[in-house]
Amino acid sequence: MEGCLFCKIIKGEIPSDKVYEDDEILAFKDIKPAAPIHILVIPKKHIDSLAQLEKQDEALIGRIYGVINKIAEEQDFLDKGYRVIVNCGKDGGQEVMHLHFHVLAGKELGGKIVG
Amino acid sequence: MEGCLFCKIIKGEIPSDKVYEDDEILAFKDIKPAAPIHILVIPKKHIDSLAQLEKQDEALIGRIYGVINKIAEEQDFLDKGYRVIVNCGKDGGQEVMHLHFHVLAGKELGGKIVG
Repeated sequence: MEGCLFCKIIKGEIPSDKVYEDDEILAFKDIKPAAPIHILVIPKKHIDSLAQLEKQDEALIGRIYGVINKIAEEQDFLDKGYRVIVNCGKDGGQEVMHLHFHVLAGKELGGKIVG
Repeated sequence: MEGCLFCKIIKGEIPSDKVYEDDEILAFKDIKPAAPIHILVIPKKHIDSLAQLEKQDEALIGRIYGVINKIAEEQDFLDKGYRVIVNCGKDGGQEVMHLHFHVLAGKELGGKIVG
């Protein structure tokens, strides 16, 4: 989608530190990491947010979790643990209007899930 | 799985404040809410954590997101926004070893995603 930061990253118009890519999914390091490991996993298809998901997108969401575990295994945090966060809309604190899954790892993230 | 708190909730051995149920998925209110709305969405099938997901579970994960949006619509926070969090393992701060999706809503949750 024109003007979308993440669509520009997908097209290579804006550089990113990629950790995974296939036909449907891209993963890259967050430029403002909130933990030692902070990766964003996004569908290449532009979907504004979780709230816009359609029935036919559900398989893609499932695949994203498969990719998250593949990355976790490669980067050696599958067994140590990690947190996946998806912010949706205003109350959710979503900053870029292209659906993205935050994957946080690399330290004990603690039990407090709202800052 | 024997001894699992959430399996006992699924079987009705421990009461819960249910908000959604179908053959595969159960959602209920968190007893220690971290936001005005705090719902846990779980697969009825016992899966310890995200790290134990198998390829054949991916469709179920996608369905869970469909259920989250159904609940969001019913409880009128689909457009206002929400946050979905999955903690996995020790570093992720997972407290119950039965895969669960935290759904938080009802206020501006802010941009800070690690407490």
